[in-house]
Amino acid sequence: MAQQHLEPTESVSGHVGPSPALGSARAAGTPTGDALAGYLRSQATEFLRALRQHRESGGAAAGAEDPVDAARALRRSVRRISASLHTFRPLLDAEWSESLRPELAWLSGTLGMEHAYESRLERLLLALQRLSGAVFPVQGAGSATHPAAAPDRGNLTVGAAKAGALLDRQLTLARTRSHSTALQALGSSRFHAVADSIAVLASEVPLTKTAVTTDLHPLATAAQERLEDAATALPLVTAGHPYNAEALVHGLSPDPSPHPQDAPWHQVRLLLRLHRYAREVLCGSDPPVDLRLLTAGQALDRHRDASEAAAAAAAAARTPRIAPATAYALGVLHADQRHEVEAARFAFQQCWQKQAVST
Amino acid sequence: MAQQHLEPTESVSGHVGPSPALGSARAAGTPTGDALAGYLRSQATEFLRALRQHRESGGAAAGAEDPVDAARALRRSVRRISASLHTFRPLLDAEWSESLRPELAWLSGTLGMEHAYESRLERLLLALQRLSGAVFPVQGAGSATHPAAAPDRGNLTVGAAKAGALLDRQLTLARTRSHSTALQALGSSRFHAVADSIAVLASEVPLTKTAVTTDLHPLATAAQERLEDAATALPLVTAGHPYNAEALVHGLSPDPSPHPQDAPWHQVRLLLRLHRYAREVLCGSDPPVDLRLLTAGQALDRHRDASEAAAAAAAAARTPRIAPATAYALGVLHADQRHEVEAARFAFQQCWQKQAVST
Repeated sequence: MAQQHLEPTESVSGHVGPSPALGSARAAGTPTGDALAGYLRSQATEFLRALRQHRESGGAAAGAEDPVDAARALRRSVRRISASLHTFRPLLDAEWSESLRPELAWLSGTLGMEHAYESRLERLLLALQRLSGAVFPVQGAGSATHPAAAPDRGNLTVGAAKAGALLDRQLTLARTRSHSTALQALGSSRFHAVADSIAVLASEVPLTKTAVTTDLHPLATAAQERLEDAATALPLVTAGHPYNAEALVHGLSPDPSPHPQDAPWHQVRLLLRLHRYAREVLCGSDPPVDLRLLTAGQALDRHRDASEAAAAAAAAARTPRIAPATAYALGVLHADQRHEVEAARFAFQQCWQKQAVST
Repeated sequence: MAQQHLEPTESVSGHVGPSPALGSARAAGTPTGDALAGYLRSQATEFLRALRQHRESGGAAAGAEDPVDAARALRRSVRRISASLHTFRPLLDAEWSESLRPELAWLSGTLGMEHAYESRLERLLLALQRLSGAVFPVQGAGSATHPAAAPDRGNLTVGAAKAGALLDRQLTLARTRSHSTALQALGSSRFHAVADSIAVLASEVPLTKTAVTTDLHPLATAAQERLEDAATALPLVTAGHPYNAEALVHGLSPDPSPHPQDAPWHQVRLLLRLHRYAREVLCGSDPPVDLRLLTAGQALDRHRDASEAAAAAAAAARTPRIAPATAYALGVLHADQRHEVEAARFAFQQCWQKQAVST
C-alpha cells in the first residue's frame, strides 16, 4: 500500500540508484545501526548540554534570553531522539524504546506550550494591526517585544482594540501557566527519570543484536513513503485552486472543533518532520538542504499556526459578556486566519507538486 | 494619455487593420451616425415595449414574474441609451443629450435598487449557509425563492441564524422600500417626461448635421482606450498573487467606507460596460461574443456584489443591542465576502492578462 502512490522519481534517488551525494556516503559504508547510535548519542549529548545551560541560567529568574534558548535546544533534541526511536524502532531494544517514547512526547509537549502561546498571540496581534491599520500595545509578558507600540493612534477601532486586549489577556495567562507547568515539570521526578535515561543514551545506545550491521535505508525509505502517501491523500487539487473557500467551510458551525479538515495536514507536517530527521540520521546531522522539503515544512508550520490562531480567536469570542464590536472583530480575525490556512495549503501544493529533487 | 498604455495588439483589430469580422462589415459600409441612430431607435422601442408590458402586468399586483422581467428590460434599454449618449456625445444634439442623461441615470438607479437588495440578501444567506452548514429560511419577501429551506436542522449556530435573520429583516425592508420608490418613480411626472423623450427617440434621433457621414470607430476606440487605461492602472500584479490578503486590509478600520481600494475596480466595471455597448452600436445589437470581455465583466460584477455584501454585513453589525454571537457571525461573513472581493480581482487579472482576442 505504501508503494502504490510512489513514482520512482519521487523516491530519494540514493535509495533506488546511486546519486553523487549518497554515492560517496556509500563509498564510506552504507549507514547502519552504528550511524543511528552515533546520532542518538550526539542528540543525547545536546540534550544534556541544554539542560545544564538551562539550570545555570536559573530558569526564568536571571538572563531573559538564555532559558528560552535552552528550552528550545531541549525540545530540539527531544524531538529528534523521539523521532529516531519511532522511525528506527526495529533496531532498538523494544522495551526501552516503548517506555521512553511517551515520556519524550510528554516532555516535548510540556516544554513547547509556552512558546506556542507566545507566537500565537504575536500572530493574532499582527493580524489585528493589519486589519485595523493600528498598532496594539501588548499589555502582557510579551510587551518587551513590542517597544515601538503606540498607545493610541486615534484610529483604533474600539472592537479591534478590545479584541486585542482580550486575546492578550487570555493568551498571556495561558502562557504564564505553561511557563509554570514547564518549570514544575523540569523539577519533577518524572523529568529526572527521563533525563537519566537520556544520560545513559549519551554513552550507551540499546541497539538490537543485528542492528550494527543493518542498513538504515529501508526504514528511512518507509518513513519517506508514509510522508508521500499522506501528502498524496491530501486534497491537493482543491488546494491548488486559489480562493477555493474550503478553509472557512463550516467556520460558523456550532461544533467545538469545526475543522477536522485540518487534521490530515497536521499529520503530514509530523510525517515530514520524521522524514527530515531520518535524513539527518543517514546523512549526518548536517544533511544537504532540500529546498522543497524546507518550503513544504514552512507552509505546514504556517498552516498549523494559522489553524490554532483561528481557533483561539473563535474561543475568545465565546467569552461571556463581551461587547458586540469585540465579537465582530474576533469574527473577522477568525476568518482572516482561516484564509491564512487556505493560503498555506496553496503554498504547500505549489511546492509539493514540483518534481522531488535528488538529495 | 489615453494612448500611452496601449499596445497595438490590445486594440480591437478592426480599428488598426482589417479583420475578417469587421472587414465584411466595412464592405457593407463603415458604421456612421446612421448606425447609431438605428441602435438608439431600437433601444427606445425596447424601452416602450417593456414599459407597456410593465403597465399591463399591473406593477406588483398581478403576475409575480412579469413586472420583474419588465423592470429588467426597462433598465437594460435605459443603460444602453445612456451609454450611447455618453460614448457618442459629439454626434448628438448637445443640449438634448445633456438634459436626458441625468434623467436616465436617475431612472436606472431607481429601478435597480430592488433587485440589488434582493440579490445581496441571497448572496449573504448562501454564504452563511456555506459557513455554518445550515439552511436558513428566509422570512421576508424572498421566501418564495427558498421553498426547500428547513426551519431548523439542529445544527444552526445561534449566531449564524440570528445574523441571517437580522440581514433578512434589514435587506428585505430596504428592498420593500426600493420597490415602493420604484413604483412611485414610474408614476411621477419626472418619469413621464423621460418616457416622452424616449418615445420621440424611437422615431427621431437628434443627430448633429455631420453625424450621418461620421465614422463611429474613433469614438468607440476612445471608449475602449479609457477601459484599457483604467484596467492597466489597477494593481494587477498584486491581484495576480493568490492570497495577497489585500482586500481585507483595514477591514476593521473605523472609517465608515473603509474600502476606497474598491473604487477603481468599480470604475473599470462601468468602463467595460460602456465598451461593450459601443461594440453593440458598431456591430449591431448582436455582436460576436468576446469571451475575454464576458469573463472580465462577470469577475467585476462578482467584485461589486461581494464588496456591497461585505459592507451590508458590516453595517448590520453596527445594529444596536445585537448579541455577541450575532456580531461574531457577521464579522466572519464580512471577512468571507472581502475574501470573495480578492478572489474576483484574481479572476479578473487572470482573464485580462490574456492577449486580447480580435473581435
